This record gives sequence, structure tokens and C-alpha cells, in this order.
Amino acid sequence: MLHIFILFALFFSSTSHASVQDFCVADLKGPDSPAGFFCKAPANVTVDDFVFTGLKLAGNTSNIISAAVSPAFVAQFPGVNGLGLSIARLDLAPAGVIPLHTHPGASEILLVVHGKITVGFISSANSVYVKTLKRGEVFVFPQGLLHFQVNAAGYKATAFASFNSPNPGLQITDFALFANNLTSALVEKTTFLDHAQVKKLKAILGGTG
Amino acid sequence: MLHIFILFALFFSSTSHASVQDFCVADLKGPDSPAGFFCKAPANVTVDDFVFTGLKLAGNTSNIISAAVSPAFVAQFPGVNGLGLSIARLDLAPAGVIPLHTHPGASEILLVVHGKITVGFISSANSVYVKTLKRGEVFVFPQGLLHFQVNAAGYKATAFASFNSPNPGLQITDFALFANNLTSALVEKTTFLDHAQVKKLKAILGGTG
Amino acid sequence: MLHIFILFALFFSSTSHASVQDFCVADLKGPDSPAGFFCKAPANVTVDDFVFTGLKLAGNTSNIISAAVSPAFVAQFPGVNGLGLSIARLDLAPAGVIPLHTHPGASEILLVVHGKITVGFISSANSVYVKTLKRGEVFVFPQGLLHFQVNAAGYKATAFASFNSPNPGLQITDFALFANNLTSALVEKTTFLDHAQVKKLKAILGGTG
Amino acid sequence: MLHIFILFALFFSSTSHASVQDFCVADLKGPDSPAGFFCKAPANVTVDDFVFTGLKLAGNTSNIISAAVSPAFVAQFPGVNGLGLSIARLDLAPAGVIPLHTHPGASEILLVVHGKITVGFISSANSVYVKTLKRGEVFVFPQGLLHFQVNAAGYKATAFASFNSPNPGLQITDFALFANNLTSALVEKTTFLDHAQVKKLKAILGGTG
Amino acid sequence: MLHIFILFALFFSSTSHASVQDFCVADLKGPDSPAGFFCKAPANVTVDDFVFTGLKLAGNTSNIISAAVSPAFVAQFPGVNGLGLSIARLDLAPAGVIPLHTHPGASEILLVVHGKITVGFISSANSVYVKTLKRGEVFVFPQGLLHFQVNAAGYKATAFASFNSPNPGLQITDFALFANNLTSALVEKTTFLDHAQVKKLKAILGGTG
Amino acid sequence: MLHIFILFALFFSSTSHASVQDFCVADLKGPDSPAGFFCKAPANVTVDDFVFTGLKLAGNTSNIISAAVSPAFVAQFPGVNGLGLSIARLDLAPAGVIPLHTHPGASEILLVVHGKITVGFISSANSVYVKTLKRGEVFVFPQGLLHFQVNAAGYKATAFASFNSPNPGLQITDFALFANNLTSALVEKTTFLDHAQVKKLKAILGGTG
Repeated sequence: MLHIFILFALFFSSTSHASVQDFCVADLKGPDSPAGFFCKAPANVTVDDFVFTGLKLAGNTSNIISAAVSPAFVAQFPGVNGLGLSIARLDLAPAGVIPLHTHPGASEILLVVHGKITVGFISSANSVYVKTLKRGEVFVFPQGLLHFQVNAAGYKATAFASFNSPNPGLQITDFALFANNLTSALVEKTTFLDHAQVKKLKAILGGTG
Repeated sequence: MLHIFILFALFFSSTSHASVQDFCVADLKGPDSPAGFFCKAPANVTVDDFVFTGLKLAGNTSNIISAAVSPAFVAQFPGVNGLGLSIARLDLAPAGVIPLHTHPGASEILLVVHGKITVGFISSANSVYVKTLKRGEVFVFPQGLLHFQVNAAGYKATAFASFNSPNPGLQITDFALFANNLTSALVEKTTFLDHAQVKKLKAILGGTG
Repeated sequence: MLHIFILFALFFSSTSHASVQDFCVADLKGPDSPAGFFCKAPANVTVDDFVFTGLKLAGNTSNIISAAVSPAFVAQFPGVNGLGLSIARLDLAPAGVIPLHTHPGASEILLVVHGKITVGFISSANSVYVKTLKRGEVFVFPQGLLHFQVNAAGYKATAFASFNSPNPGLQITDFALFANNLTSALVEKTTFLDHAQVKKLKAILGGTG
Repeated sequence: MLHIFILFALFFSSTSHASVQDFCVADLKGPDSPAGFFCKAPANVTVDDFVFTGLKLAGNTSNIISAAVSPAFVAQFPGVNGLGLSIARLDLAPAGVIPLHTHPGASEILLVVHGKITVGFISSANSVYVKTLKRGEVFVFPQGLLHFQVNAAGYKATAFASFNSPNPGLQITDFALFANNLTSALVEKTTFLDHAQVKKLKAILGGTG
Repeated sequence: MLHIFILFALFFSSTSHASVQDFCVADLKGPDSPAGFFCKAPANVTVDDFVFTGLKLAGNTSNIISAAVSPAFVAQFPGVNGLGLSIARLDLAPAGVIPLHTHPGASEILLVVHGKITVGFISSANSVYVKTLKRGEVFVFPQGLLHFQVNAAGYKATAFASFNSPNPGLQITDFALFANNLTSALVEKTTFLDHAQVKKLKAILGGTG
Repeated sequence: MLHIFILFALFFSSTSHASVQDFCVADLKGPDSPAGFFCKAPANVTVDDFVFTGLKLAGNTSNIISAAVSPAFVAQFPGVNGLGLSIARLDLAPAGVIPLHTHPGASEILLVVHGKITVGFISSANSVYVKTLKRGEVFVFPQGLLHFQVNAAGYKATAFASFNSPNPGLQITDFALFANNLTSALVEKTTFLDHAQVKKLKAILGGTG
């Protein structure tokens, strides 16, 4: 048996000296590249690099939208780097709303695990697709399109959103318009919103200009 | 106002005569292509094409593995065609096992929503990564590698698996070896399994040869 | 010489019987697939399939935005099918605005060929990037992010936008919110806009609900 | 045992009703798409769809270049459709030359199985990389760059070229310039070749204009 | 209002601590990777990283081809890194010619903004597609194929070429053959050009060997 | 002539100052990224970076499988980094077997150059495709599926396998099950193999647990 094992080892050595890997756990301290972060050295990778426990508890919904998005994107979950997918948890209090938003680089599948959620998206052709989902139902949002999720019942709702990118991005329209230094003049010109409306939401969301 | 609307319509018409879409709901009756199925005509697409309700109920686990995999891949959920992702539900009775398998064309994120599940995968470098997950924990399996899920508690477990392909494939090693007409001689030669072992499992799993 | 030619023909015939091509001019009458339209039969392809003359003249800017977008996407210019790029012309009258919008499936390079244009985009991290461009200057907009173009002078401006997709899509935020049947209630809930503001813009842009 | 088998069948049926496949053998009679040909119906696929025997014999080298290229691209070997790779056989008589050419859509690895072959490519930065290969040596040509293969010994040589595309294309510079109806005037203007030289090669290679 | 803002901040902080970005401005001082250069740190990115002004003025056409190509590829315009597109300016004096060339890694759309330009490409099937374009007309060149641009009028012409790669490459056939140290013997063998012709062009274009 | 050359140089300089390249020879000492290794500085690249001579001689088949796999993947052949393909040599002594295995990230074309080899793969739909190949015949294995190669004659066989990835990976089922520290309990649970069988193969292949 020992003899066989040694012979086997000879074979195995001819294919095992490669340092390349079939995963690339992100080294978040290093720089980023267009394809993602550098790989942590394989010798330092452990099973815990492939586990994320940060979605176990509900996010804090005591905020303006009565909702929370808890991402397990590459910045939070380095194990998904280079693997082409990620996940996030959505918690909605009874009045909870995930405001109109896009993910610039990914499609999304939403799975409702508790409560009822009204979801919708608008296509490039300007068609509206709206549905109220119950527990266990799933919905797919095509890449890059405006969409939203709204609690559709009088009690808490929880859902999980899967993305086909480790870094799907999240651009909430209201924050893009009202929560930064984009001038009111430009917001008004490019959205036709009234001046008073823009000023009011900039005040609420902390925007300047 | 009417005047403005008409002017607007003029603008809008210059960009809206395109028949192209930002999704491509599969026409499963048509042939397949390397990039997926043909698109259903946009005019016939409704919101229900983006909803899948087939994962609401637990799959039937009264089988040899005490487990069930319920896929929402493109063949079941035509709305994911061309969108680069899909999802499946896993139900494991107390003794439930999803046997060693691969998805040839996708990475996977597993989310445990009920119970405890021991998961693991083996890398190309032959390292083993095993972990027992609790409710709300997620695990990522790199593309194409052998992996498994086993109920780790005395009660039912449920999980959802997300994939970065609408058609991830599923190749269960045991079925590939013992549930078809691959001859016992070839199975033995290419796996070093004993003849009696191969014959026994072929009998259980319905294989011939 | 004739002899040599015949020998050549023998060689050439061994590689030329392939029907496959290095382009795939769209047959817009056929169905679409996730990778684009079917290819027109190579024998029917002529040089005119690779030419588009529809951008020679300024678009009609007598509309609500005093601007026009003239696309040469795959629906207008079938020659770009499968080639991974397309182009569009932008005309802005003195008060012209291309309102806040995204291209769900493409990045964009804008080239100003006449006049001055103020452009801007907002990142996922909510940073604002705004610049006024003169003739001959170019600007790159990363994929899927909200951006706009506004005439920055008292005279007409013209620009050309290139995209890395034959079908980049165009989702104008205002149209998505106010020019379809998405209910006012949902618009208000998911944008925090006031009821009066929503009703006003729905009236202007022809939306219902 | 029968009981177990039935239970197994229940499990298996829940995952096996998909018509989707993990390969897509080309139906060459159907139209092409940007991602390749339609898939032959899975039920009609046999093992012979994955075999190609057309490279067993040397190509006919009794021609102007004393060489032959025998492709197993998708047009000859439908099994590679959608799988991202293909292969070709090169035969070079003692004076054999595969003239300067590119593959517009693929990189290439050349493996010499008989004889000696001088290979070379020129980079975008205009650097020249030339090497004479012996039996068993391999060489990689980066995508889309001009390259050539020349017999480097006084006896026959054989090589196999692998490509990372089922349809790599083959554009021989001489044929593109002199074996079609591109006018001599345009050839001369865009290559600086003398009129007499252009006319001479057009005569040899059968070009007109 | 302050209270609301603080609640909002709580929500926002849960999604904003990611260092990942939706663009990746090249750090040209760092090494390159197969997917492009490393990303400049987001904190150091400004709007000017997305602007390129180097195409405002005509290139110098006082040269052998009476023409100039001014690229805004990733090496000149780091903002396009990872975004999948780039642009270049072409200036042609009355006798100007962009000689026969390929872009190994990209398709191209040419837009004529001044003058008249005769363009053409040759397909893998050796078909010739030639057209004379006027101002405002566009033409698409499929990836990797030989093509050219020639001034078609007695006055200056200007065009802009868009590419679906930040690094499309540019291989001018004449330079590859005659402007480096590829030996005359190999040039002659792999192109069938006469010795005198090769020597003449090597002398003009500065080649050796 | 000198004058012309100087003019040419002016033109050429406008396009040659780019440091970007059309290849990316791996710097194996640097870290890896999801798209491959960093590029060696272009100035240090020589023609030998594109040559691999390690497949000239037969691998050592004096081992448990009477076979050898000699890879020219990116870890052995840095020139293929970023180019999307690689190659390997297979040697099989008369009783040689390449045991059941997958390549997680690539399809494969096998070319038999000496002897006879029985090859086979199993699809996701559990169909078996088996064929005995003679010299000069090729076979394509779709990405990620279980397959094997077995010597089919009483003499040595040699084959070359091409892959559409510079890092295809290699996961031999037996090694994944029996040649590491995956516990016997988990192997038995996830494969239905008998305890004695598992222990026996773990002993042969050096596994623990």
C-alpha cells in the first residue's frame, strides 16, 4: 500500500504545484481592479472566508424609510470576489419602503421570507410591472432598471435579494438627487421638479446646493 | 398643457419605436441558443413573467435522500432567461442530504432560512472547506466545484440557493456514476471503486451496465 | 499562372465553405435572443448594412425639453447587432436638456461637436461629477449611473454619444415616474415627492394613475 | 430496493424535466445568432456530435503555399457551438508557408507534432516575436495579431492550432488584398505597395480591380 | 427635521461604508492586469478624470500618410479603464490615408464630422465592403478585420472612431511588415511580395532586416 | 527618403507612447486577481514568454493510474495569462486511466496523437457519451462535466487537451473524496458509498478522517 501511495504522490505532484486557485477571496486592503480585488494568498484562506453571518439579524428600521438594506457584497463578504454573485437582506417595518433605485451592474432576484411586499420595476420602454409578493415567492428585476419594494401588510416583512455581481451597486434616486451637493438648479432643470419640492427634500435628506 | 404634451410626444416618439427590450423572457417552445432561449414578444410579456411561486411550498422529501431540490431555473422560470441568475429551494428532512454535486456553469450562494445545515466544498487544490450554518447565515460555493449540504439537526431545514446563471446545471456525482448506462467496468476503472460497491449502488439508483 | 491559381483555389476551398461570419447583421423581423437578433443571411448582406445615415440632420428640438436624442442602436442600425457598440446624436436648443437618465446596459462616451454642454453623473457612493464641455471635448459616463446633459450656452449644441452595447437602453427618470400608469401613490411612497408635484408632472408628461 | 428506487425517482423527477442542456450542438441549417447557432434538439444529440474525424489525414499541400489548413470550427464540427473553443490542423510541405494572417476573434495555441516550424507574430507596439519550434513545443499567439507559420526543415511538418472560440475566423492578409475585387487603386493607397506589385499578386491570387 | 435626518443617516451608513466603486480610473503607474489597470483610490478621483480634452485640436498631418490618429484609449484617458469603451480622432489632409489596419480587440464605429471619407473593410470570407461617407454618416467595422479610411475630397476631413474596448489596439499592416526588424526573408515568404518591394518599403518606413 | 521617414516618425509617435499591450504575460510572483495575474512589464517580455517546451517529453506514468497529466496552464506557462486558453499533455501507459474528473472553469478539446483512447462524459441530464478515439481524432467535453480518458489499446497513448481558460482547474473525483481530510462520515453520507469502501480508498490515496 505504501508503494502505491508513493506512486500516486508522483502523479499528484505533477499537477499540484500550481499556485492558482478556483476562487479569489478579496484582499480588501489592496487596490481594486476592473475585475475585482486581488486575491488573498491561498494559504491564508479558511472556510470562514466563504461564510457571512451579518445577515442573521434584522437591520435597524428606525429611520426615515422604516426599512434597512444589509448588503453582503464584496466589501462586506470578501469571499464573493470574482465569483459573480452576492446577496443582501431587506427588512421593512410596517410602513417600510425601499425607495426607487437601480443596481447599475446587476440583475436581482428577490425572495420574500416573511410578510408581504409590493415590488415593481419600470422598463426602458416605460412599461410598469408591479406585483404583491407573499412569503416564498420570488421576483426577478432586469439589470439596471428602476425598481422599488414596499411593505404591503401591517406587519414586518423580510426578503433576500440575490445579484449576479459581487458588487452590484445601489443608486437610490432620491439620494442621488437630494442627498449630495448637486445644485438645486441642475436638479430642477433635469427633472422638472419645482424649486420648493427640491429644497424640501434636500433639507430632509441632507443635500446642499 | 396639451400643447406641451404634444411636443413631448414628438420627442418621445423619436426614441420609442425600438422593439428591443431590456429583458428577454424565454419562449420555451422555441429552440435554445448558446446564450439562452429566444425572447417572448414584448407585447405578450406581463408582470407574471417575472414572478415565480413554485418555491412557496416545501418539496417532497419522502425519497432516498430525504431531501428535495426545487429549481427556479430558466426551464421553470422563463423570466430569468438572459438575466444571468436563478434560484432554487432546498428542503432537508432530519436525515436529509443533498449528495455531492457540482453546477457546471455557476457559483452558488446558499442562505439557510430554517434549521441547521452542514455544507462543504473541495477545491481544485484538494482542500476541504466544511461549516455548519445556522438560520440567516450564507455560504458561497465557487463555480464548478464538488459540494454538498447535509441536515445538521434533528428537525427540518430549508435553504435557498442563488446562482449566477439562469441555467446553472446540476450534476450529482452518484447519479452520474450509478443512475445511467455507464458500464460498471468504466465506473470501476475511472473511480477505483470495487465491483460489488458499483453493482450495489447501480441497483439502488436504477443504473444499468 | 493559371496553374498556380488552380492550386490556390484548392487551398482556399478547404477553408471557405464555412457559412459562419465575423458579423451578424440583425434580421429585425425575426425574434430576439439574449445575445441579440438572428443574423441576416451573409449572401444578402451589403455594404449599406454597415452604414447609417440617420444622424446627418439635427433632431427636432421643438418639444418640452428643447432637445432630441436620435439613436443608432440595433433597432435603427441593424449592422451593430452582436458587435458590442452603438451611437446616438444629441441636439440641444439653447434651453435644451436631456433629463436625468440611465442606460441600463452600457457605459457612454460623449463627444461635443458644437456648442457647450454641462454634463454630470452621480455615483453609487452618491458623489456628484459635473463639468461644462466645449467643442471637441469628451466625457465618459460609467455604466448604469444617473446622468444628464444641459445646454450651457445661448446657442445650439450638438454631441454624439457612443455606447459599448448595440442596445444600451435609455431610461429617463421623469418618464419612468410620470409618463406611464405607475400610480401616484406608489410614486409618492418610493420618492417622497409631494402629491401635488406628482400630479402636476403626470399631467405634463401624460401619465395616469 | 424497488421501494427505494421509486422514492429516488420522485426526487429525480423534480429536477429532470428541464429541457435545457449543458451543451448546444449547432443546427447548421438554422440561422446564426451573435452567440452562435441554435441548438440541435437534445433528444437528437449523440456521442458522434462531440467527435470530429476530419483532422486524421494530412490536408492537400499541392498548392501555391505548399500548405493546408484543415479547420474543425463550428461550421465543420457543430459540437463546439457555444463551448468557446475549436481546433485546426496545419500541414506544411518542405516549402510550406501559412501566410501572414489574423484570427479576428480568438487567441491561438500552436502545438507542433511533426517537423520544425518557424512561427512569429507582431504586436500592436510593432515588436516582432519569432521562434523555431520543434516537435512537442507549443506557442501562444495573442488575439487578433498578425502571425505566420513557415516550415523550418527539409521535410513535412504538422501542427495543431487550438482557439478560444468556436468561430475564430481566418483573414489571410494576401487574400484580403489580392484575391477579391478591392481595387488596385485602394490597395496601393492603403498599403504603399507599387502598382506593378499589386497587379502581379492580383493576377496570381485571382483578384480583380 | 434634524431628527429625520439622523434617522436617515443611520440607514445610509449601513450601505455606504463600502470602498468599492462603479468606475475604476486607471492608476497608470501601477502594473496592468488582464482586465485593465488598478483603480486609482476613489478619494482621489475628481470630475477631471472623466474628461479628455486632447481631441479638441486636429492632429499633425504633415507626415507620410497626410493623416493623424489621436487616441483617447486608456493610456491617454485613464477614466475609461474597465468601462469597456474608448474613442479616437482621425484627421486626414486632402491626400490623407489611414493605411490598412486592424484593432485586435474591438469593433469600431466611425462618425464623419467634416469632409468626405472612403472607408472599407474585408471580411474573413474575403468579401469587400467599401463606401464613401459624408458628414454625419456613421459606419461600423466588425472586430479584428482589416479596414482603412481615405480622404475622398480635395479638402480636410475629420472623423471620430468609437471602440468597445478601453484598449482596442492598432496594428497597421505596413508598419507590422516594414517598420520593425522582421526579416525581409520572412516578409517575402509570408506575403509573396517581391524582394525589391519589401526593401523599398522597409527603407521608407524605417525597418531593418 | 530621410525626410519622409521623419514625417512618418511624427505620425507614429502620436500612437506609440501607450504602455498598454495586447498580451499580459503573468508575473507569477505578484498576487492574482479574478481576471488573472498582473502583467510582466512589456519591456521585459521576450519571445520565450510565448513558448512552452515542457510538453515535449512523456510524463512519468509509473504511478497508481499508469498515466500522467502535464499541464501548460498559467502557473506553468505564464504567456497564456489573460489570453483565454491553455493546453496539457496526457500520457497513458497500456493500463493508463485519467480518472473521472472535471475542469470547473473550461471546456476541453482532446486530440489523440498516438494510440487509442476511450473517452466519455456524463451530462447534467445524466446521459452518457462514450467513444473510442484513434490517432488524429478529436473530442469536445462541455464545461464542468464529469469525464474520463482510458487507454483502449495494449500500447502507450498520447493526447493533447486544449482548454478555453488559462486556468481551467482539475478536480479528480477520487482525490476530492479520498485524498484529503474530508471525514469518512461525510463522504459516506454524501455519496452512499459503504464505510469499508471509503476507508479502503482513503488508505490507498492517502486521505485521513
